[in-house]
Amino acid sequence: MGSQEQTTLAARNQLFYGTFIYPKTLTDLEYLHNTAVAVDQNGTIVAIERDFDLSQAASTLFPRLGWAPDSVSIHSSLASHNQFFFPGFIDTHLHAPQYPNVGIFGKSTLLDWLETYTFPLEASLSDPAKARTVYNRVIRKTLSHGTTCAAYYATKDVTTTNLLADLCLRAGQRALVGRVCMDQLSPKYYRDASAADSVAATRESITYIESIDPTGTIVRPVITPRFAPSCSAPLMAELGKLAAETGLPVQTHISENEGEIALVKEMFPAKKIGAKGDTYTHVYDTFGLLTDKTILAHGVHLSEEEVQIIKARGSKVSHCPCSNSALTSGAARVRWLLERGIEVGLGTDMSGGYSPSVLEMARQAALVSRHVAMGCAPAKKENKGEKENKGEKESEAETEGKTNEDGNSEKESKANQANKDGIDRERAKLTVEEVLYLATKGGAELVGMKGKVGGFEVGMEWDAQLIGLGRDVVDGEYEDEEKEEEGNVDVFGWESWPNKVAKWLFNGDDRNTRKVWVKGRLVHERK
Amino acid sequence: MGSQEQTTLAARNQLFYGTFIYPKTLTDLEYLHNTAVAVDQNGTIVAIERDFDLSQAASTLFPRLGWAPDSVSIHSSLASHNQFFFPGFIDTHLHAPQYPNVGIFGKSTLLDWLETYTFPLEASLSDPAKARTVYNRVIRKTLSHGTTCAAYYATKDVTTTNLLADLCLRAGQRALVGRVCMDQLSPKYYRDASAADSVAATRESITYIESIDPTGTIVRPVITPRFAPSCSAPLMAELGKLAAETGLPVQTHISENEGEIALVKEMFPAKKIGAKGDTYTHVYDTFGLLTDKTILAHGVHLSEEEVQIIKARGSKVSHCPCSNSALTSGAARVRWLLERGIEVGLGTDMSGGYSPSVLEMARQAALVSRHVAMGCAPAKKENKGEKENKGEKESEAETEGKTNEDGNSEKESKANQANKDGIDRERAKLTVEEVLYLATKGGAELVGMKGKVGGFEVGMEWDAQLIGLGRDVVDGEYEDEEKEEEGNVDVFGWESWPNKVAKWLFNGDDRNTRKVWVKGRLVHERK
Ligand SMILES: [Zn+2]
Ligand SMILES: [Zn+2]
Repeated sequence: MGSQEQTTLAARNQLFYGTFIYPKTLTDLEYLHNTAVAVDQNGTIVAIERDFDLSQAASTLFPRLGWAPDSVSIHSSLASHNQFFFPGFIDTHLHAPQYPNVGIFGKSTLLDWLETYTFPLEASLSDPAKARTVYNRVIRKTLSHGTTCAAYYATKDVTTTNLLADLCLRAGQRALVGRVCMDQLSPKYYRDASAADSVAATRESITYIESIDPTGTIVRPVITPRFAPSCSAPLMAELGKLAAETGLPVQTHISENEGEIALVKEMFPAKKIGAKGDTYTHVYDTFGLLTDKTILAHGVHLSEEEVQIIKARGSKVSHCPCSNSALTSGAARVRWLLERGIEVGLGTDMSGGYSPSVLEMARQAALVSRHVAMGCAPAKKENKGEKENKGEKESEAETEGKTNEDGNSEKESKANQANKDGIDRERAKLTVEEVLYLATKGGAELVGMKGKVGGFEVGMEWDAQLIGLGRDVVDGEYEDEEKEEEGNVDVFGWESWPNKVAKWLFNGDDRNTRKVWVKGRLVHERK
Repeated sequence: MGSQEQTTLAARNQLFYGTFIYPKTLTDLEYLHNTAVAVDQNGTIVAIERDFDLSQAASTLFPRLGWAPDSVSIHSSLASHNQFFFPGFIDTHLHAPQYPNVGIFGKSTLLDWLETYTFPLEASLSDPAKARTVYNRVIRKTLSHGTTCAAYYATKDVTTTNLLADLCLRAGQRALVGRVCMDQLSPKYYRDASAADSVAATRESITYIESIDPTGTIVRPVITPRFAPSCSAPLMAELGKLAAETGLPVQTHISENEGEIALVKEMFPAKKIGAKGDTYTHVYDTFGLLTDKTILAHGVHLSEEEVQIIKARGSKVSHCPCSNSALTSGAARVRWLLERGIEVGLGTDMSGGYSPSVLEMARQAALVSRHVAMGCAPAKKENKGEKENKGEKESEAETEGKTNEDGNSEKESKANQANKDGIDRERAKLTVEEVLYLATKGGAELVGMKGKVGGFEVGMEWDAQLIGLGRDVVDGEYEDEEKEEEGNVDVFGWESWPNKVAKWLFNGDDRNTRKVWVKGRLVHERK
């Protein structure tokens, strides 16, 4: 315990000074300049001073905080290098053992991708040496991209699932670590022998993970039914009970791909499992797996009815745009989910998705929202119909108040309809601010850290990145070698801060992530 | 002239040795190992020796080539660092002056994006100092991403357009450089005073560019009507004549966005301009702007009729997936174009597109093709109808022979239809091999360099990149700092070469582009 405390806590008080940017709301970023953020030894933000004179810190701020001046480390963002502090990213869905397969998916879609690429690799990770190499790599890689918290699927193997938790704890990356439950469908070489075995192994892993981090500050177990087709009804029922008994979070997949949805319908008819309805969502709901701590990955093809159930249970959705596009799963309607009050975060879903970067996910969320705007939404017609019939169910959040008020005439003119379509299309698009919200504050809601991380406010914990866009471009022609290392964002000097943030979103990469902290501890630094 | 020759030619004979990968056909990459490629002082490939013993070069190969051993520089790809040689990328459409705006587009679409972001910036680039900074930056940036040839729009300003050509020549990047013609629609501060002025300025720029590189080996002028709405009928007619008179290539935009298409229809009714039809394509065709050297950017919403005209004229299409998604323009049907025999390359279309990387375009072309497969094609229904009616127009290229043979019954069962849809959808997807073909060999067709660049064959010129994926990952945990600089591709050691190429396509960036050559001359190197 003692040594673990040392690895997970910063040893000193810290004062961060300069420019801070963070999502205030879904639609607005806060920009603070010349600001000081005081972070205590526990990694908690204890003061935020705007328009602060750093030279006065020792005489004004530190005494107020009861800090001896020589107990404080000071870190400034360099204005000359277009640096700013930003909340750490939260990857709300990824598979650590699949990391070696990123980019390798051919023309496959979900079910053949699992058989061809995924199950063999996951099974091979029961080798602890291989698992150590892969898991260290994925932790280090995601940290280098600013991921301060990740919701990991491991494999069905207990020993190496526990190893993943050990390695996250040691690296200081917050993690939900899930031992994967799967007692059917997958090949025999990679399947739990029975529901009882699956639950027992899950309990074993939970016990271990809780033993290495009893407060759950850095690593926590998460109940992880792979997805409905991989789990028998008895297994899901037992896991639902386990969730109720332990209060632990749950993560699984839902409604990713049409073939999968048809399979679920075939495997779990409502009558057979005693469900109140015939959808994918009803299956999980029947077994008690939809809690207010449940992360549902994908949700691409959800119906209005399903979303209302998910909303009622308080479950959340992890949007995985890269995976959904790569595996031809569909284009998830994030605006539509948000308008219904669903909390949404972003997931890399490696290796369905190929990128380890949540910044890239934010970028792709913006692109996919434009594909939705261009008519790529899978269930568009259905939802239009529903909308017209159930006007009262329309959410208030984020609507522009233009679309639902004039739905009166049956014989609406074509022009009006086109105009309505135009507004709907426009509305689907996610802004720079919105996708960065999903990457941070939105993600915090999914991993049970709402109000704790994802922003900079007193009482929150210091999970943060120092972003540097590099010095302004001057006409150096060929001598500006240093710029090269600083990455692909070019600032010319005339840009507003929102412009700079947009440039970072669209061309930034791990080179711009200069330092990363979790709970005040420096967990990554670029040399 | 003498000094120019020196800057554009390699001084020595060169022997490249190791692994070479290049597109053999649209669907297949060639993998050559232990191979030697001999490149003479003119940058031309004069020999390719498979299964070559490098230690025998001086006694066997060099004498045959008439090379004194000490006149040869030898460059090997390092197997230990997963290096290979690959053809240089060709960016078939981008706007050099818009580079400072990459990533800044908000929620705009084409026409408001032009007004808000683009025209003011382009106009400001008539300042030579600013132009020098921006143009040097975009050349250096695209070279660092492996772009050995680029088809640039400059601005309407002659002096700085000529400067762009100077800078490309000096940097050794092959370029088509186009002075932009626009005598209407745009704001008064950024518009040619008349058609005559526009043509005169264009001739002036052509004369200059031809004077600095009389053979057109590195830089060439290109006739560049911005797009139909920016050009009066007399201007387009004059530019068509100029193309016929000079034999120079032409570049313009076509059918990018629905609002633009409606505008073209309104501005250029067939009757008024004497066109044989009512489409965007007919406008350009009427004015003689569709030649076998014409690059048409976008082509998102083209109809079957338009594609047949484009095919008949031998004009080509630059697919700009990043721009089309970012500006909500639509999802271009690349497979559909290829099947009709249209030659297709990739364009970054900065700053409609935000990325300077053709590798990223290849990646996004793969993703957009999946969105097309998911039903995002703009004119899907229309084309289905056309397909059924005009079965004889179906192209032979690349079809799988499954869809068109059973289109007999009017009352086809639903299941059959679903199956047909499934095959159609599957077919839309572009493979790793195909998008890399578009990025290289496909692009070469657009810029008039078919058979000269885009592959490694005797007689072709050495426009190439040395790609390095870095050393295999071992369990170094935290000590493998060097890996960081090598980028985001992680090779674990068990991957096949096609796997490695897929990993590069999906997670590679400029860090993997270790060296870049144009016509044998080293034009970029990462330190
Ligand atoms: Zn997943
Ligand atoms: Zn363009």
